[in-house]
Amino acid sequence: MPQMSPITLTPIGEVQNDIHKPADRGEAKRNPDLKRKEQKAFHERVKETVSRLVIDAPYEPLLEGIEAFSHIVVLYWPHLLPEKERQIQKVHPMGWSDLPEQGVFATRTPTRPNPVLISTVRLIGRENNILHVKGLEALNGSPLIDIKPYIALDETDGEPLFPEWIKKLHDEMRSS
Amino acid sequence: MPQMSPITLTPIGEVQNDIHKPADRGEAKRNPDLKRKEQKAFHERVKETVSRLVIDAPYEPLLEGIEAFSHIVVLYWPHLLPEKERQIQKVHPMGWSDLPEQGVFATRTPTRPNPVLISTVRLIGRENNILHVKGLEALNGSPLIDIKPYIALDETDGEPLFPEWIKKLHDEMRSS
Repeated sequence: MPQMSPITLTPIGEVQNDIHKPADRGEAKRNPDLKRKEQKAFHERVKETVSRLVIDAPYEPLLEGIEAFSHIVVLYWPHLLPEKERQIQKVHPMGWSDLPEQGVFATRTPTRPNPVLISTVRLIGRENNILHVKGLEALNGSPLIDIKPYIALDETDGEPLFPEWIKKLHDEMRSS
Repeated sequence: MPQMSPITLTPIGEVQNDIHKPADRGEAKRNPDLKRKEQKAFHERVKETVSRLVIDAPYEPLLEGIEAFSHIVVLYWPHLLPEKERQIQKVHPMGWSDLPEQGVFATRTPTRPNPVLISTVRLIGRENNILHVKGLEALNGSPLIDIKPYIALDETDGEPLFPEWIKKLHDEMRSS
């Protein structure tokens, strides 16, 4: 395969919210039980967080009509991810050692070669060049790459299946 | 807002399939009825097309575990899109003049500032560094940016709503 040219993106705006650091830093990094507890609390907090997507003024006309959608797909860049973490090949999902190690392309970890992160969120409202959305996991200051409408009619071809570890992870994150 | 730094992506592989050009080129560009007919035929053809996602050899370990998912999310780059089309601000969806003009962020048009295109497709199988997928709209030779598992449990917060033009577009594309 020929060597492919790099692709250059220019951020279209940035995320503003009260989420200033990821879930599992500091002490929680070394204490599995504390880590899970913090991850779960973080997840609950993110679900209720309202973020402002501040779109650069020249792009404001590109938002016309977006208010008619209840949900949008936000593409953003994890600007605090250390460059060297883009080299990671395999991870335990969420860092949980009881979940089987996976290639990063089989997980949603931000540590991937091209960490373009995607989140489908509720669009609460628009104020000129600013979109208010609920439930975005991005940290404050994350550069925005793209905004797309979420179109539920684009359903998948057939019933989606996924491995058991996903179910375990979700059940635990959602249990009270 | 401060000027944000550009983001550089390195393709992780490329799409190989029999789709060599977009739906609405040549004569169809100027003939609305022919255009729709060709777009519909293209859409039907894409749904049945099996593409090979050829991942560069060094990234093969990153695929471990992906076979357990029935569907994956493919991020790719429309390499044949003329650079100047990234400046377009508003479009009639699908180029249909009877659908209301929208800002590009309110549509799925590839003509957008950062055309990172996203498609959820069925994963048919894996052969070392090659994934076989069904229904990917990407043209042959499109650089791949990322592969993520599709996780149906990440449901949206509430029932998704969308504008009337989306319904019209989908109904017409799916009618026989």
